[in-house]
Amino acid sequence: MNTLRDMLAAHPESDFSRNNNLHNTVEAIASCARVCTSCADACLAEPMVADLARCIRLNLDCADICHATSQVLTRQTATDPALWRELINACRTACQVCAEECERHADMHEHCRICAEHCRECVQVCDTLLQTVAA
Amino acid sequence: MNTLRDMLAAHPESDFSRNNNLHNTVEAIASCARVCTSCADACLAEPMVADLARCIRLNLDCADICHATSQVLTRQTATDPALWRELINACRTACQVCAEECERHADMHEHCRICAEHCRECVQVCDTLLQTVAA
Amino acid sequence: MNTLRDMLAAHPESDFSRNNNLHNTVEAIASCARVCTSCADACLAEPMVADLARCIRLNLDCADICHATSQVLTRQTATDPALWRELINACRTACQVCAEECERHADMHEHCRICAEHCRECVQVCDTLLQTVAA
Amino acid sequence: MNTLRDMLAAHPESDFSRNNNLHNTVEAIASCARVCTSCADACLAEPMVADLARCIRLNLDCADICHATSQVLTRQTATDPALWRELINACRTACQVCAEECERHADMHEHCRICAEHCRECVQVCDTLLQTVAA
Repeated sequence: MNTLRDMLAAHPESDFSRNNNLHNTVEAIASCARVCTSCADACLAEPMVADLARCIRLNLDCADICHATSQVLTRQTATDPALWRELINACRTACQVCAEECERHADMHEHCRICAEHCRECVQVCDTLLQTVAA
Repeated sequence: MNTLRDMLAAHPESDFSRNNNLHNTVEAIASCARVCTSCADACLAEPMVADLARCIRLNLDCADICHATSQVLTRQTATDPALWRELINACRTACQVCAEECERHADMHEHCRICAEHCRECVQVCDTLLQTVAA
Repeated sequence: MNTLRDMLAAHPESDFSRNNNLHNTVEAIASCARVCTSCADACLAEPMVADLARCIRLNLDCADICHATSQVLTRQTATDPALWRELINACRTACQVCAEECERHADMHEHCRICAEHCRECVQVCDTLLQTVAA
Repeated sequence: MNTLRDMLAAHPESDFSRNNNLHNTVEAIASCARVCTSCADACLAEPMVADLARCIRLNLDCADICHATSQVLTRQTATDPALWRELINACRTACQVCAEECERHADMHEHCRICAEHCRECVQVCDTLLQTVAA
């Protein structure tokens, strides 16, 4: 059972066949928000937190932007395609920038390694979504 | 692989053995936020939306409160137990009130049926969490 | 001109005379969210950030909870009084706990001093609001 | 007294002279988020809510995006300019699209008229900010 898939299929305007992977997309982006919130918090507890200030800042930004994006993508009623595309672009950049910073600390901090990996996946999820829309 | 579990285990102050189910708890609450966002949006697209105004309003409240709660629960650095408890209580009430309203429309709208079910589960998740803390 | 006051007065179910100070209440809580976001960020840029980890964590929690509370208070359609009260209680505690921590750093960091002051005011705003409801 | 201005001036990395209007920018965008939350809620209480579904949907999107943008703009530590620019662009589009929809209902609903006006102002605030950065 996947709750969000069932919710999207139950939407009165749903044409779920157009993008029957949308629930996975939304969950990947929402999960990235959560992982970034967690990485910011784990960095904060490191003795060397002063070296991780930029990492924490980008984690917090990425969490906020991924959350807003997951909210907008969840909604199916009267979507505006132009807004949709610009927001996914901004989300893609947030994940990219955050991944690059986390990778610099991946050898020292397992939480940064996992977070970088998750942000990289989220960049690909955004790319795939942008191609689906363009097609 | 569960990303959030791995993140929580990688936290420098982690004593993951104390609550090795925390990632499931956080994900249930974050998932409830998403389902409520989706139910508000599905209600909005129903021809009889005027009868669903209270349902939409409580969905939006529940989404906001569950999201804030999942953020606070994700953080492990220097948790304040009193704040933690009051927030979970508010979250529990938000899910309870939303479940009751959604149940009134469950026969007519599959999205309300699923959302009510998910909110009920989230009430139990909050109860279990409150007991863990009290113990 | 105050935009939020005008918005609340234009609400079709508005009985603005019941609480014609509500816009100030919402704006004080939303402003507290922003100040806490700013204090977390300023702490992060301090050379002694390692001593401010608890402060940052509570700032982030307070920002999330104040934001959710300001969202719920802004809504006038079919309010649930029990949920409303519990959420304001949690918000009050978040501000209280954050004020206490910020006060410990107020002598060294002007941003903590301002943030503590603002959180204290927000505690009073919540108290006044809770009394209004009880009356 | 303006609290956010004082907070930004107290930031350890602050070069507040570069953009001493930033607090007004952040507050305009955060205020737009609140007005959109309020307009969605007022629309929901209208007897003709079925005709306002697209308006509510865009209000909710605009509120989420403006909130995330105000969070990112509030932060001064180690800002990433590319991310910053893309996010403001997405925020600008959200306000533009929301203004256009609200204007269609401005004659019938005072809350839509005020919201459209506020979203239009926010588009200009984003334009000014983008020019400041480009300069």
